[in-house]
Amino acid sequence: MIDLRSDTLTRPTASMRRAMAEAEVGDDVYDEDPTAHALQERVAELFGKQAALFAPTGSMANLLAVASLVGPGQEVLCESRAHILRAELGAHGALMGITSRTWSHPRGQLDLAAVKELYAPDMGPFFVRTTAISVENTHNFAGGSVLPLADLQALRAWATSVGVGVHMDGARIWNAHVATGTPLVEYGAVTDALAVCLSKGLGAPVGSLFVGTHEQIEAARVLRKRMGGGMRQVGVLAAAGLHALDHHVERLAEDHEHAALIAERVGVDPATVETNIVVIDVPDAAAVVARAAEEGVRVGAVGPQRVRLLTHLDVTRADAEQAAKVLAGLV
Amino acid sequence: MIDLRSDTLTRPTASMRRAMAEAEVGDDVYDEDPTAHALQERVAELFGKQAALFAPTGSMANLLAVASLVGPGQEVLCESRAHILRAELGAHGALMGITSRTWSHPRGQLDLAAVKELYAPDMGPFFVRTTAISVENTHNFAGGSVLPLADLQALRAWATSVGVGVHMDGARIWNAHVATGTPLVEYGAVTDALAVCLSKGLGAPVGSLFVGTHEQIEAARVLRKRMGGGMRQVGVLAAAGLHALDHHVERLAEDHEHAALIAERVGVDPATVETNIVVIDVPDAAAVVARAAEEGVRVGAVGPQRVRLLTHLDVTRADAEQAAKVLAGLV
Amino acid sequence: MIDLRSDTLTRPTASMRRAMAEAEVGDDVYDEDPTAHALQERVAELFGKQAALFAPTGSMANLLAVASLVGPGQEVLCESRAHILRAELGAHGALMGITSRTWSHPRGQLDLAAVKELYAPDMGPFFVRTTAISVENTHNFAGGSVLPLADLQALRAWATSVGVGVHMDGARIWNAHVATGTPLVEYGAVTDALAVCLSKGLGAPVGSLFVGTHEQIEAARVLRKRMGGGMRQVGVLAAAGLHALDHHVERLAEDHEHAALIAERVGVDPATVETNIVVIDVPDAAAVVARAAEEGVRVGAVGPQRVRLLTHLDVTRADAEQAAKVLAGLV
Amino acid sequence: MIDLRSDTLTRPTASMRRAMAEAEVGDDVYDEDPTAHALQERVAELFGKQAALFAPTGSMANLLAVASLVGPGQEVLCESRAHILRAELGAHGALMGITSRTWSHPRGQLDLAAVKELYAPDMGPFFVRTTAISVENTHNFAGGSVLPLADLQALRAWATSVGVGVHMDGARIWNAHVATGTPLVEYGAVTDALAVCLSKGLGAPVGSLFVGTHEQIEAARVLRKRMGGGMRQVGVLAAAGLHALDHHVERLAEDHEHAALIAERVGVDPATVETNIVVIDVPDAAAVVARAAEEGVRVGAVGPQRVRLLTHLDVTRADAEQAAKVLAGLV
Repeated sequence: MIDLRSDTLTRPTASMRRAMAEAEVGDDVYDEDPTAHALQERVAELFGKQAALFAPTGSMANLLAVASLVGPGQEVLCESRAHILRAELGAHGALMGITSRTWSHPRGQLDLAAVKELYAPDMGPFFVRTTAISVENTHNFAGGSVLPLADLQALRAWATSVGVGVHMDGARIWNAHVATGTPLVEYGAVTDALAVCLSKGLGAPVGSLFVGTHEQIEAARVLRKRMGGGMRQVGVLAAAGLHALDHHVERLAEDHEHAALIAERVGVDPATVETNIVVIDVPDAAAVVARAAEEGVRVGAVGPQRVRLLTHLDVTRADAEQAAKVLAGLV
Repeated sequence: MIDLRSDTLTRPTASMRRAMAEAEVGDDVYDEDPTAHALQERVAELFGKQAALFAPTGSMANLLAVASLVGPGQEVLCESRAHILRAELGAHGALMGITSRTWSHPRGQLDLAAVKELYAPDMGPFFVRTTAISVENTHNFAGGSVLPLADLQALRAWATSVGVGVHMDGARIWNAHVATGTPLVEYGAVTDALAVCLSKGLGAPVGSLFVGTHEQIEAARVLRKRMGGGMRQVGVLAAAGLHALDHHVERLAEDHEHAALIAERVGVDPATVETNIVVIDVPDAAAVVARAAEEGVRVGAVGPQRVRLLTHLDVTRADAEQAAKVLAGLV
Repeated sequence: MIDLRSDTLTRPTASMRRAMAEAEVGDDVYDEDPTAHALQERVAELFGKQAALFAPTGSMANLLAVASLVGPGQEVLCESRAHILRAELGAHGALMGITSRTWSHPRGQLDLAAVKELYAPDMGPFFVRTTAISVENTHNFAGGSVLPLADLQALRAWATSVGVGVHMDGARIWNAHVATGTPLVEYGAVTDALAVCLSKGLGAPVGSLFVGTHEQIEAARVLRKRMGGGMRQVGVLAAAGLHALDHHVERLAEDHEHAALIAERVGVDPATVETNIVVIDVPDAAAVVARAAEEGVRVGAVGPQRVRLLTHLDVTRADAEQAAKVLAGLV
Repeated sequence: MIDLRSDTLTRPTASMRRAMAEAEVGDDVYDEDPTAHALQERVAELFGKQAALFAPTGSMANLLAVASLVGPGQEVLCESRAHILRAELGAHGALMGITSRTWSHPRGQLDLAAVKELYAPDMGPFFVRTTAISVENTHNFAGGSVLPLADLQALRAWATSVGVGVHMDGARIWNAHVATGTPLVEYGAVTDALAVCLSKGLGAPVGSLFVGTHEQIEAARVLRKRMGGGMRQVGVLAAAGLHALDHHVERLAEDHEHAALIAERVGVDPATVETNIVVIDVPDAAAVVARAAEEGVRVGAVGPQRVRLLTHLDVTRADAEQAAKVLAGLV
C-alpha cells in the first residue's frame, strides 16, 4: 500500500531508530535532558532565535507560540483556512481564550492590505486589540503553498511599526526552505514566535518546537506543563529530531519532485503544487479515495469534490509513479 | 451640551420613570417577577418566537444567544467588524471558548458567497465545525447599515439546509424595522437566536433580551446566573422596557431624519446614513472632536480620521440642526 | 402569603421607588452616572476603602473581587459551603480558571489552623499557589453565622505576613455589623477585596458592589464589561442602594429579632440563630415546606431533612409570629 | 551522584531501548499505531476495563480522566494535597472549568465521612453539583501512602448509590499493587476513570494512560487532540511501556525495601514509609539538601523543614545504603 494521506505517516528509519536508542537522556521536567537541550539549541540557532522548547505536537507548539503573543480576550488575525483555526479543535479559543478574525486567500497567502484593514489597534481596554498576525508556511489546507519572503518581510516591518507580533505556523517550514532556497534564519527574522514540526516531512516519530526569545520560552515551559506536555526523558524523541535535521531536510526536494510528477501525470495545474502536497478536483472524492485504495494507493478526501495527497519520506519515486498511474486512471 | 457620542446615553423620560416606580416586581432568580415575564413574553411575541430572557446588557444577551448555538471549540462566522468580536472584550472566546472566522464587507453586509466559502461542515471531531453564522442589524461599526431582509432570508434558507444556526445581534433591530418597515416577526423568522437591546435607541436605562426557543431560554437562565446576570426585582427595569416598546419604537424615524439632516448639511454621502448613525471622514478626528465639544457638541472618534455620531431620544430637531451647523463649520 | 424563602425577595418600598424615579443618571459604561458615583464613593468610604464598583449581582461582585486577587491557575482557599463555590455555578473555575481547596466548619467559621495547613506558598511556577483566602460573613449556608472580628484580624495579620489576599463575601455584612456592632470600617480593614450586596437584607431590587483599591476597581471595570455587567443608566438602581443605606441598615435588628422569635417558638437552638437565618432540622423537609405553604408560610428545603427560612424587610413582627405558629405546629 | 529527587528520573534500560528501537509503529492520530494499540489493550485488560488511551504525561491522563466525569462548572472532591490540585498548575480549573472542594487527611487517605459531608447532590441547575470523587493511590505528597482496598470499595459502593464517578490518580498504582498484593483488576473495579503512569517507578521515558470505557476513551481522543497531546508514531514510547509492564512491576518491591532501609537508618517512622517515598522532618531542609548533594546524594525539599526522597529503578541497594549513610549523618 502506497500511503499518501499525510506526511505525518512517515516511520522512523533504521538509523533514526539507532540514534533514538543511543540517546543520552535526563528528566526534561527538571530541564535536565541533554539531547532535548541539544535539539532546542540547534533549532533556535537554525532560525537565529534565542531559544526553543520541545513539545509533543505541532498543535501544542502553535498554542504555546500564539499564547506568547496573544492574551485571553485579545485577538490574532490569520488566513481563514489556517491550521490553528481549522484543525486544532478550537484550542486557541477553548483553552486560551484567544479570539480571532480572518482574511481569505485562495492560495492561503498573506494579504497585507487585508491585514491592515482588519487590524484593531489599542483603543482602550473596552475594545478587543490585535496583538498578533499568524501566517502558515507552507500553508497546509491551501495545498502546501509557500509564502514569499518579501511578503513576510513587509508584514514584519509593518507589524513592528504598529507593535504587534508575528506568529508563523512553520510545521512545514522545511519544505518552504527547500522549495525556495530561503535560509531558515530569514524565516526566524520575520517572526516573533515560530512553531516548527519534526514529525511531518522530516520523518521523526514525535515532536515539534516553539522557537522564540528566552523570556517567551521560559513562560512556555510553564504553560506546556499546564497543558500536560511536560514529558520526562524526551531525549529519545529529540534524538530523532536531531537525526532528521542531519539527514532529512535537503531530501525534501525529492518529495517535491514526486508531488510534481504526480500532478503532471494526473493533470493538475503544476503552479498549484509548490511543495509536497497535491490537491485534485474530482467529481466524486469519496469514490476516488475508495477506488484508489483498491488499487493500492491511499489518498484523502478534503471536500466532497476534492482529493488531497502528500509525498513524504516513505514514498519512493517508484511509489510516486505507481500512484500517478492509478490516480490518472481514476480522475 | 448636545451629546451625540452614543444612543446609549439616553435618559429615562418622566413617564418611563413613572412606569418604573409603579412596576409590580418579584424575585427574577426565582422566575417570579411579573413585569419581567410581561416584557419577555411581549418581546418573544413581537418576533414570533417562543420565549425571551432579560439580561443586564446587550453583551450578555449576545453571549447567551451565541452560546445557545455554538459550543466550546466550535465556531461562529461573522463580518469582521461585528460588535461580538470587536466590542465585547473577547468574551465569546475568553469566557465561552468559542472560536471565530470572518468575512469583510465595507458596509457590514452579509456576503453569502463568502459565508459558504468559509463554512466548515462537520468533518469529524478533529476539525472545528461551523455551528452558527452571526449577523448584526443594524451594523454598528459599519455606520448603522441595514441588512436587507432578502439577504437574511437567503442566509436562513442555506443555513437550515446545512444545519447551522443564525444569530442576529439586533441591538438596533428597532432601527432596521423602522427604517425599512420590515415587520419584526420577519426578523424573528430568519434567526435562531436573537439579541435585542432596550437601552440604545429605545431609551430604557438598562436591559437587553435574548429571544429564542423555550429550550434555549431555559439553558440561558442557567448560563446567565453563572455569568453573574441573575438579578432580583428586575421588574423596575423591565417596566422601562415595556414603556419603551409602547412609546419609543416608531419615533426612531425622527432619529433617522435627524441623522439624515446632519449628514446632508455636513456633506456626508446620504447613502451611508441608513438609520441613526453618521460617520464622517475628516483629516484629524481628534481635533474635530475637541473643537466640536468646545462648541457644545460631543461626538466620538472611531479612527484617526473618522468621527462618528448617533442621534437618539434626547436629541431634538433643534439639537440636530445646531450640531449640523457646528460640524459643518469644522469639517 | 408570608414568604421566608429568602431575603432576596424584598420589594422596594414606596420611598425607595420614589428615590429611584428621581435619580440623576448618566451612562455608566462611560463612567458618567452621578448616582452610581455617589453610591460607589459612599460604600467605599463606609468600609474605609479607596473605591467601589457597582455590579448587577452578588455573584458578579464576588467574581470581580476574587479575580482581583487570584489569577487563572492560582487558588483561593475557603470554607467548604462558601457561596462562591456552592451557589455561583462554578463561575470562578469555569469563567476565570481559578482553582480552590477548602476547610470545613459546622458553623462556617474561619479555621486559621486549617488555613495555614492548606496554604500553598510560592514553590515556583510548577506548583499551584494560594493567592487568596475567602471568608463569608455572615455565612449563608451555615445559617447566617457571624465571623468574629478577632478571627478576621488574625487572618489578616497572617495573610499579610505571607503575602496572600483576603476576600470577603459580605453579601450580608450589614447583618454582621448590626448583630455585633462592629463598625463597617473594621471589616474593610481586614479585607483586600470585599463584595457587598444591596438586594438582600437591605431591600434594594438590584445591585452589589466590589470594594477595593483604585487599581483593583479599574481592572474590575474591564472585567465587568467582559462579563456582560457594564450597564448604562444604573443610577436608577444605585439610588435604591443609597436609600437602603440611609434607611434599611439599622432596622436589620428587627429581622434578627424576628428570626430569634421564630427559632425560640419552633424549638431551634438560639445559639444557631445569630442573624436573620433560621435552619430547622425536620424528619421530612419537603413535607414541611408543602404543608407550611398550605398554611400561608413559604420556607425552603436545603436538604432532605433541613428547612431554612430568612426574615427580611417585608416580614413584620405579626408575620413572624404567624410563621412561628404555623411552623411550630408542623415540626 | 545518587539521585533520589524523584522516581521520574529513571532512564530507559538497554533492553527497554532495544524494545523501543524495534517497535512497530503507525500514525496514532489516525489510530493506526499497533504498539500503542497493544499497550492500550494490555493496560485496559490489566485493570479489567474496556479501553485505555496513551497520553504524553500523567497530568494529561488525569485531566482526560477527570474531564470524563466532571463537566465545566461541576465539581470534583479530593484530598487537599492531591496531585491534581497541587501539581498540575490548576489545569482542571484553568483549562476545563472544573471546580473543586477538599477534605484533609495527614496520610492522604480517603475519609468517606468527610466525602459524604462535602458531597453536593443535584439540587437543580443553580447549584454546583459533585460529579466525581478523586483519590490518589499511592498518594504522592502524603509520602507514598497506600489507600486500603476496603476503603476504596466502600467509596465505590456509596458513589454508585448516589450516582457520582470515582477517579483514581494511579500514577503510582503499581507501587500500591506491589506493596499490598492487591490485584490491579481490583483497582479497576473501584474506579470509573483511572490514570496510570509508565514513567515513574516503571522506568519508561514517557507516557501515561487514561483507562475507562470505550465511550470515555473515544471522547478523550478528541480532548487529547485539543490539548495538543495527539502524537504520531507513539509506538516507540508505547514499546517502552510494554517492556516496563513485563519487567519492572514486580521489582518495585526492591524500591520499597530500599526506602524502608533508608527510613530505618535515618530514624524515620517506618509506618510512614509504605512504598518508595521517604519524608524526613529536619530543622533546615535547604541545608540538608545542599549538604547531601555535596556528599553525592540528591534529595528534594518539599517544605522549609521537610525533605523528600524517592527510590527507583536506577537506585541499587548499595546506592540506598550510601544515601542512608549520608543522610543519617545530616539529620
